[in-house]
Amino acid sequence: MTKSLRPTAPDPADFTRYLERQRRKIDRVLRRRLARIPEAPSSLLAAMRYSLLVGGKRLRPILALEACRALGGAERHALPASAALEMIHTYSLIHDDLPAMDDDRWRRGLPTAHVKFGEALAILAGDALHTLAFQILSEEPEGRPYAERRGRVLSLVARAAGVRGMVGGQVRDLESEGKRVTAPALARIHRGKTGALLTAAAISGGILAGGAGGEIEALRAYSESLGLAVQIVDDILNEEGSRTGLGKSPGKDRKDGKATYPSLFGLAPSRARAKLAVARAHRAIAPLGARARKLSQLADFVLARDS
Amino acid sequence: MTKSLRPTAPDPADFTRYLERQRRKIDRVLRRRLARIPEAPSSLLAAMRYSLLVGGKRLRPILALEACRALGGAERHALPASAALEMIHTYSLIHDDLPAMDDDRWRRGLPTAHVKFGEALAILAGDALHTLAFQILSEEPEGRPYAERRGRVLSLVARAAGVRGMVGGQVRDLESEGKRVTAPALARIHRGKTGALLTAAAISGGILAGGAGGEIEALRAYSESLGLAVQIVDDILNEEGSRTGLGKSPGKDRKDGKATYPSLFGLAPSRARAKLAVARAHRAIAPLGARARKLSQLADFVLARDS
Repeated sequence: MTKSLRPTAPDPADFTRYLERQRRKIDRVLRRRLARIPEAPSSLLAAMRYSLLVGGKRLRPILALEACRALGGAERHALPASAALEMIHTYSLIHDDLPAMDDDRWRRGLPTAHVKFGEALAILAGDALHTLAFQILSEEPEGRPYAERRGRVLSLVARAAGVRGMVGGQVRDLESEGKRVTAPALARIHRGKTGALLTAAAISGGILAGGAGGEIEALRAYSESLGLAVQIVDDILNEEGSRTGLGKSPGKDRKDGKATYPSLFGLAPSRARAKLAVARAHRAIAPLGARARKLSQLADFVLARDS
Repeated sequence: MTKSLRPTAPDPADFTRYLERQRRKIDRVLRRRLARIPEAPSSLLAAMRYSLLVGGKRLRPILALEACRALGGAERHALPASAALEMIHTYSLIHDDLPAMDDDRWRRGLPTAHVKFGEALAILAGDALHTLAFQILSEEPEGRPYAERRGRVLSLVARAAGVRGMVGGQVRDLESEGKRVTAPALARIHRGKTGALLTAAAISGGILAGGAGGEIEALRAYSESLGLAVQIVDDILNEEGSRTGLGKSPGKDRKDGKATYPSLFGLAPSRARAKLAVARAHRAIAPLGARARKLSQLADFVLARDS
C-alpha cells in the first residue's frame, strides 16, 4: 500500500468536521422523510421522529454514501438508501431496548422510546420505521438504471436485517445471556447483530454507484472488518465509558451477563484486535485508490473514537 | 349485471372445498419458506412457524391469487407475494397480541406467540416475518417483466402496511379504546388496520398479472368493499361468537372498550351494512366478466361465514 492511498494522518480534526457535516445532511433527509406523511397519526410520527432524530453516529448512512462515492457514484443517489438503513437500525434499537428484551431505559443520553411514549407506541414506531425503510428502498432513486439496482439493494438489505442477519443475531445475543460464550459464537452474534447491516450499507452504496463485482467485493471485505472494529470498540466503551459520553448505562452488558470482547479476551487484547481489523479494512480498499480516502479515514476514526 | 357474471348460487359447498384447497396450497408455500433458512436460530424459526402455520383464513393470499387469475395471470406468479402478504399480516397479529397492545392470550384457538415463546422471541419473530416478506417481494417472481412489477408491488404493500395503513390504523385503534368513536373515525381505523393490506393484496395480484389501469381500479373498488364486509362480519362474530368457532375470546373487543360496528350501529344494521358492502364488491368486478367468478364467490363467502 502506498502512502498516497492512506492520506489519513494530516488532520483528524478535518475529518471529524467532515463527518459532522455528513451527519447534518443525513439528519435533514431523515427529518424531511418524517415531516411529509399526511394522514399518519401524530403520536406515531412523534415517536418515530424522537427515536430517529435523537442523534447517533449515522455510521450506516455514512458508509453507504462514502461507498457510493468511492465507486464513482453521486452521493445523492445513495441518500434514500442511507435514510432507509438508519431507519432499520433505529427500529432495531427501539425493539432491542424494550423491557422484554435488553430493558434499556437510556439511549444516546435520553430516555428510550418505550420510557418516553409507552411500550405500545414504541413497538409500533419501530414497525413503522421498518416498513418505511423498505418503502423508500423500493421507490428511490427513480428512473433507469436505478430500478434494477433498487431491487438488488432491497434484497440485500432485507437479508442483512432478517433471520440470518440482524434479527437472528439479536436472538443469539439474548440466548447467550449469562452463558459461557466461545470466541466463534461471539463473532457470529456480532456478525448478525451489527455486522450484517453495516456490510449491506457499504455494498448498497456500491451497487447504487453501478460498481463492478471486484469493487463490491472490496467494499464487502472492508465493511466486514470495519464492522468488527466498531463492535469491539463499542464493547470497550461500554465497559469503560461514562453515561455522559456513551449515552447509555456503562457496564450494563456485564451486568446483563452478556458476552463481549473485553469479557472474553481482556481490554488490551481487545484493543489489539480492533486495530488489526482496521488494518484489514485499509488493505481491503487499497485497490480502490484515492477515491476511497474517506472510507480509509472512517476506519481510523472508528478506532480512535471515545464515545 | 347479468346472471352469468354471478354464478355463485349453484353450490357454496364446492367453493368452500375450493378455498380449502387454496389454503393448503398457500400453507405448503409458507411451510417451505420457513424450512429452508440455514444459519437462522432454531428458536426464532420455531416461533415464526408457529404463528404463521397455526391456521387462519388466508384471505390476503387468496385475494392476491384470485385477483391475478381474474386478470389473466398465472396463479404461480402471485404465490410469492401471497406468502409475503400473509407474513406481514401474521407479524402484525403477533405484535398486536402483545401485553403492551391488545394483550390477547388466544389466537385461532391456541396460545398467542408471546404466551408460547415469551415476549422477546415473539417481538423478534414478528420482526423477522416482516423483513422476510419484503425480501420475498424483492426477489420473486424472477425475470422480466417481473422486475418492474415487483417494484410496484413492493411500494404498494409497504405503503399499505405503514403509517398511513396498517400500523397507523393500529395506533388509532389503541388510541380510541374507551372513547366514543364516530362512524367516520371507525371507518378510518378499519381502512388502515385491515382494509389497506387487503386492498394491496388484490392490487398486487392484478399488477403481477400485468393488468391494465381500469382492471386494477376494479380490483381496488372490489377489495375496499370486501375489506369493509370482512371487518363488519369480524366485529359481529367477535360479539356473538364462541371461543371454539372464533379461536379467540368472544366479547373481548367490548370488554376492551373498543369501537365496533355492532357497538356503534347495533347487530342487525351492521349485518345490513356488510350485505351492502358485498353488493358493491360484486358490482365493482362485474366489468371483469366470468374470469372474476371466484372473487365474486369469495365476497359471498365472507358474508356467509360463521367463524
